[in-house]
Amino acid sequence: MAVTYELLKECPETGARAGILHTPHGQIETPIFMPVGTLATVKTMDPRDLKEIGSQIILSNTYHLYLRPGHELVKEAGGLHSFMNWDRPILTDSGGFQVFSLGDLRKITEEGVQFKSHIDGSKHLFTPERVMEIQNALGSDIIMAFDECTPYPATHEYAKQSLERTTRWLKRCKEAHKNTEKQALFGIIQGGMYLDLRTQSAEEILALDLPGYAVGGLSVGEPKDEMYKVLEHTVPMMPKNKPRYLMGVGSDDALLEGVYRGIDMFDCVLPTRIARNGTAMTSHGRVVVRNASYSKDFTSLDHNCDCYVCKNYTRAYLRHLIKCNEILGFKLISYHNLYYLLNLMRNVRQSILDGTFAQFYKENINKINEGMGREKCRS
Amino acid sequence: MAVTYELLKECPETGARAGILHTPHGQIETPIFMPVGTLATVKTMDPRDLKEIGSQIILSNTYHLYLRPGHELVKEAGGLHSFMNWDRPILTDSGGFQVFSLGDLRKITEEGVQFKSHIDGSKHLFTPERVMEIQNALGSDIIMAFDECTPYPATHEYAKQSLERTTRWLKRCKEAHKNTEKQALFGIIQGGMYLDLRTQSAEEILALDLPGYAVGGLSVGEPKDEMYKVLEHTVPMMPKNKPRYLMGVGSDDALLEGVYRGIDMFDCVLPTRIARNGTAMTSHGRVVVRNASYSKDFTSLDHNCDCYVCKNYTRAYLRHLIKCNEILGFKLISYHNLYYLLNLMRNVRQSILDGTFAQFYKENINKINEGMGREKCRS
Ligand SMILES: [Zn+2]
Ligand SMILES: [Zn+2]
Repeated sequence: MAVTYELLKECPETGARAGILHTPHGQIETPIFMPVGTLATVKTMDPRDLKEIGSQIILSNTYHLYLRPGHELVKEAGGLHSFMNWDRPILTDSGGFQVFSLGDLRKITEEGVQFKSHIDGSKHLFTPERVMEIQNALGSDIIMAFDECTPYPATHEYAKQSLERTTRWLKRCKEAHKNTEKQALFGIIQGGMYLDLRTQSAEEILALDLPGYAVGGLSVGEPKDEMYKVLEHTVPMMPKNKPRYLMGVGSDDALLEGVYRGIDMFDCVLPTRIARNGTAMTSHGRVVVRNASYSKDFTSLDHNCDCYVCKNYTRAYLRHLIKCNEILGFKLISYHNLYYLLNLMRNVRQSILDGTFAQFYKENINKINEGMGREKCRS
Repeated sequence: MAVTYELLKECPETGARAGILHTPHGQIETPIFMPVGTLATVKTMDPRDLKEIGSQIILSNTYHLYLRPGHELVKEAGGLHSFMNWDRPILTDSGGFQVFSLGDLRKITEEGVQFKSHIDGSKHLFTPERVMEIQNALGSDIIMAFDECTPYPATHEYAKQSLERTTRWLKRCKEAHKNTEKQALFGIIQGGMYLDLRTQSAEEILALDLPGYAVGGLSVGEPKDEMYKVLEHTVPMMPKNKPRYLMGVGSDDALLEGVYRGIDMFDCVLPTRIARNGTAMTSHGRVVVRNASYSKDFTSLDHNCDCYVCKNYTRAYLRHLIKCNEILGFKLISYHNLYYLLNLMRNVRQSILDGTFAQFYKENINKINEGMGREKCRS
């Protein structure tokens, strides 16, 4: 099996757990946040920057890479790792979320999804088989099943049809996946916000005995409490010896809440997206660097952070860069934001290993919740 | 004196010379190319990137910093070095070139230049005294006199009036400069393309006994041969014990030609500007990465280059990044282009020290001249 999960420690008071994910490109210490590298680059970040901040795995997007530069070209380059100069693990999503988000530009049938490129309007068809072929060409360590990400809100009937199609498509994905020795196919549990449907989906998906599972269809606009309710219902059904991935979630509070409920893996474009808008994630809430109040603030972005940016740059300088649209500004804040989340997860993991996660959670969640909004997580 | 020049070796066959510039922030091995950091950042490059490629000094722009974030704020931050996290030498220009380039937005009088900001149209006045005050606040190691950069073409009469004003303004600059212990004021020789006026300007400027001198008013649209003729006439008048700076020149061929004629210092936005357009400077000419011919080119940008980018990335990947407007693409090509020029200058200097510059020049200048255009150098 390409990817296996080793459980190291469970929190006695919560669902949190620490483990190791073994992959063809090395080990990943979980729980983990995965920076998103949509177009074979985590925006603004060089791979050595990513290593410096401790990124163990990154996520890249099948839909985007299929359109540009094309999976065949990536394959010719020796696969995605080689193409983008990243020798650690990569997870690719299936493109399902992106093509379903195209609205009028796509049409769903049992065969798959017909869609028009958001770039040039050209016509394409994603089927479970095609999506496996693309991800096999990309060569990512973890590949995701082609699913339908049920929108929010959805009727019970729609959510049921949607999850059942996701199951049928998963069977086709499993059949079509050609590289099981080097790439692990993860299934995705759907069912919208309906707990009975989550049960049905979990039973169907888990029956296929895959190396890992994701909880999909969350972080799509529902209230956070809804998301946590679904997690509390769904995660306990998932096997202990397999990794659990909550898709499209990456605010600091949601990471803590997800780990609390037994999740091992997270991804989100949030830290890099808001960075390019000049917003920093810090231990004392969001810092909108553009604000005039920081113009003569010669302190660091986050005085609790020991990252390269916080050790070397002031808010006043970062504000100046952002106000002038200087690329270095986008880069430095992206760097800090990713460091902040990765460091948070390192501390979370250590607290699980130390048996102090419940306390860690309590101490941090309130602090984080002050002044938080909810942002879009996907690219 | 804040800055002194130590001559190490002269080429017996050409005007080329190797030396050391001693400054309050360390030594600079000349001849040297200075990357341009217009707004207190060399676009896309972190200071540690600059150190990695061997940047010994950078240039920043008084006009731009005066408008954003303002020299008073930079002073409060502890000066430009501290503000931008760069502890090596900095040269600031005087803003003369920028305000004269504003066309209808500026008005020249004997007092100085009234101009409207290119950002918000607000009114400002640059006088020699004001420009010294600004550069004193910035705290750069080398500050440039407020001169009139004579446009090309210009009548003999205009060029003469212009150089004489530059002399009068230089006297006012020297008078107004308040920090001679830590900042060296360089004078600028003008005179357009008229050799008799270059003589007049050189005599007037050199009489003021400053720590260094620049040849200004070149690289403003004239044919390259004109520039070289002016250099051949002007440089021999300049003292051997002072650094000689050719402003706004940074194509690889012009660096070689400038060194050949006795120049020690160069600056230009060219390498970073064309990088953001996806164009690389290489040992075998310009590589326009965007071109379709590179889509499956899995070789490095420049096979003679051993920079981080050339060791780790392919043209195909860089092309993909540029086509997708990915910031990492702008950064990686900027990195390579600056490395290319800095490395060229390191090799130039070594050949001077080895007594083989004339041969080095011959071997490289023809290769470089193939397929070269001429690009704008200032920001
Ligand atoms: Zn930080
Ligand atoms: Zn290179």
